[in-house]
Amino acid sequence: MQNFDYQTPTRLIFGKGVIAKLPEVMRAFGPKILLTYGGGSIKKIGLYQKVHELLKDFEIIELPGIQPNPKYDPSVLDGVRLCKEHKIDVILSVGGGSVLDCSKAIAAGACYDGDPWDLISYKVKAQAALPIVDIITLAATGSEYDCGGVISRTETNDKIGYLDRHLFPHTSFLDPTYTFTVSKKQTAAGIADAMNHTMEQYFVADATLLNDGFCESMFRSLMTNGRKCIENPEDYTARAEMMLACTYGCNGILALGNSKSGWPCHGIEHALSAYYDITHGEGLAIITPRWMKHILNDRTLPRFVKYGINVFGLDAALDPWTIAEKAIDETYAFFESIGIPMHLREVGIDESRLDEMAHHIAVNEGLDQAYAPLTEKDIKEILVASL
Amino acid sequence: MQNFDYQTPTRLIFGKGVIAKLPEVMRAFGPKILLTYGGGSIKKIGLYQKVHELLKDFEIIELPGIQPNPKYDPSVLDGVRLCKEHKIDVILSVGGGSVLDCSKAIAAGACYDGDPWDLISYKVKAQAALPIVDIITLAATGSEYDCGGVISRTETNDKIGYLDRHLFPHTSFLDPTYTFTVSKKQTAAGIADAMNHTMEQYFVADATLLNDGFCESMFRSLMTNGRKCIENPEDYTARAEMMLACTYGCNGILALGNSKSGWPCHGIEHALSAYYDITHGEGLAIITPRWMKHILNDRTLPRFVKYGINVFGLDAALDPWTIAEKAIDETYAFFESIGIPMHLREVGIDESRLDEMAHHIAVNEGLDQAYAPLTEKDIKEILVASL
Repeated sequence: MQNFDYQTPTRLIFGKGVIAKLPEVMRAFGPKILLTYGGGSIKKIGLYQKVHELLKDFEIIELPGIQPNPKYDPSVLDGVRLCKEHKIDVILSVGGGSVLDCSKAIAAGACYDGDPWDLISYKVKAQAALPIVDIITLAATGSEYDCGGVISRTETNDKIGYLDRHLFPHTSFLDPTYTFTVSKKQTAAGIADAMNHTMEQYFVADATLLNDGFCESMFRSLMTNGRKCIENPEDYTARAEMMLACTYGCNGILALGNSKSGWPCHGIEHALSAYYDITHGEGLAIITPRWMKHILNDRTLPRFVKYGINVFGLDAALDPWTIAEKAIDETYAFFESIGIPMHLREVGIDESRLDEMAHHIAVNEGLDQAYAPLTEKDIKEILVASL
Repeated sequence: MQNFDYQTPTRLIFGKGVIAKLPEVMRAFGPKILLTYGGGSIKKIGLYQKVHELLKDFEIIELPGIQPNPKYDPSVLDGVRLCKEHKIDVILSVGGGSVLDCSKAIAAGACYDGDPWDLISYKVKAQAALPIVDIITLAATGSEYDCGGVISRTETNDKIGYLDRHLFPHTSFLDPTYTFTVSKKQTAAGIADAMNHTMEQYFVADATLLNDGFCESMFRSLMTNGRKCIENPEDYTARAEMMLACTYGCNGILALGNSKSGWPCHGIEHALSAYYDITHGEGLAIITPRWMKHILNDRTLPRFVKYGINVFGLDAALDPWTIAEKAIDETYAFFESIGIPMHLREVGIDESRLDEMAHHIAVNEGLDQAYAPLTEKDIKEILVASL
């Protein structure tokens, strides 16, 4: 078991109607709020109006229009400028993981004198960040309970995951009813995202029995409740459990003491969405079973067998290779069953830039250090198999 | 699924040799430390000396002699007096859960002008507490990752579990090697304590699939690694995993969104150790299977069936009542197999005060509100069955 140093200080306020506590939480900071959000879905569900009504005694500056795969330019840069201009006290992020990830980069950039990219690219270590409160409207990324974010820089095809301990949200509000109107496509992408976060921590050389059980519970819960959310978008219990499960995705609690995995599917997918701006969860779902097939060998076999038996209930008496292959097929079938397009061509990616992407991934993502190390050739093969 | 408001801000620094970070952590506070510890085992393993060596630049005041089932008088009162006299900046608790529980009561009492019992008995809500850092030497209570403690007041036979959000340790150091010298008796009691913490959250009317999987993983991990720790006290991997599992026992993360359980076995056991000062984990292990048998009925049956299949691998094709009864027998057999005396008489409790204890529990523990409500008569029957 590996040593670790772990902390997740964020307060989770969870359930129907909990937004009533928003003013009380916001009063811990100063009166000036930067309200960040995306394309306007929060207006359709009345959440934007509700936030303004609850915070009528605060001074609210707005940064709307934050896109999926949030962009350094203009969103992060605009946000940092607004924070500095208006001497913002706290950022309130209302939306999904992209809005929150962008808000985290803004929070760090606002407390730094230089180019915020210095922080995101780890050239400079953040010394402070503005406090962040969020209201999550999409169950997926787990950004509401971790200190990381992913920012894209279009001109260089960079999509960088950055982590900094100053970037834990102070408080995350999670009301499952806000996810009732999330489309089937985005719901499925969220399920795939959280499933893959768990896989990235489950497929490692050395894991505790405890963590394996936690991860297997994540898989089963996400699949069972995910299917229910797709079938009946207003199933409160299913939406709630999916929302809770997603929060555990990226703060490390599923893998405390485990050896490192390298997060290979994320490494590959970040290039796909940096080059083509596809939906992150869909990219992950497409890559995952091809990555699994690629890394299945004598050494990794026992992990796949455990996964097959404990997650899909496969018969332990079967031949181990049969169990492993069935488990990979079941993974593919699950993603397909919730409506995810399972080929890169279906999301607009053809073979034209695969070499370039494979090279970019090999150079930037360190996957030669992953649980199952991947060379540029391996990455290319996984991409080709995903077409 | 129930609404919840959850936060566990404690930093966990885990693994062999992590104590090297102690000075850096302590420097965040002032120079005056109250060092709390128990009977001297920390001197035998060299930890006391190591702490003094690492903290030679600090001013250390000591409160030794904190007992298991820590006492309000003298330990809490002495600690509060020392904190006030010496204007202590931070408490460093070195030992097991009892030392830490006592340190929490001291931390709150030191910031309160009246009688500290006002806080413990919830007569007055704590407004602040001194910061607490701990070095844990026993895997059991989970106090290192929660905001609660249990304090005994001998003259009134009270053993009160109190919770306050100010009482999360700032940082917990968990080095599994410090548990190598823990006796088989105390190791087994720790396993039983953590097993029961999990049961108190698993046996509820309404639980998520996610939490059930987390709890079942806790049970399997604690039993598998617990057995290894008893067989080979210096099995690092087993000691480490047991130590990690124990941290999750009482901060609520195993039951977020579940309905309430009422913690019935703790309610009963607190009286046993208040009246007879027995080892808490042993008391829990004795009570648990008798409580299970007592509450098994048509309504609770499905929970026991799930427990039997997922924790003990019982054949799902068996009759549900058979599965449930076997699961209870397996629970008893596990505790017995790790050397726990499984009858109250073996720990010095006879029938003489059972009526008095049953009455005390019924009046003070609110078990009429538990998942399976218990009257004074029920409690008496469980106690009699445990003799």
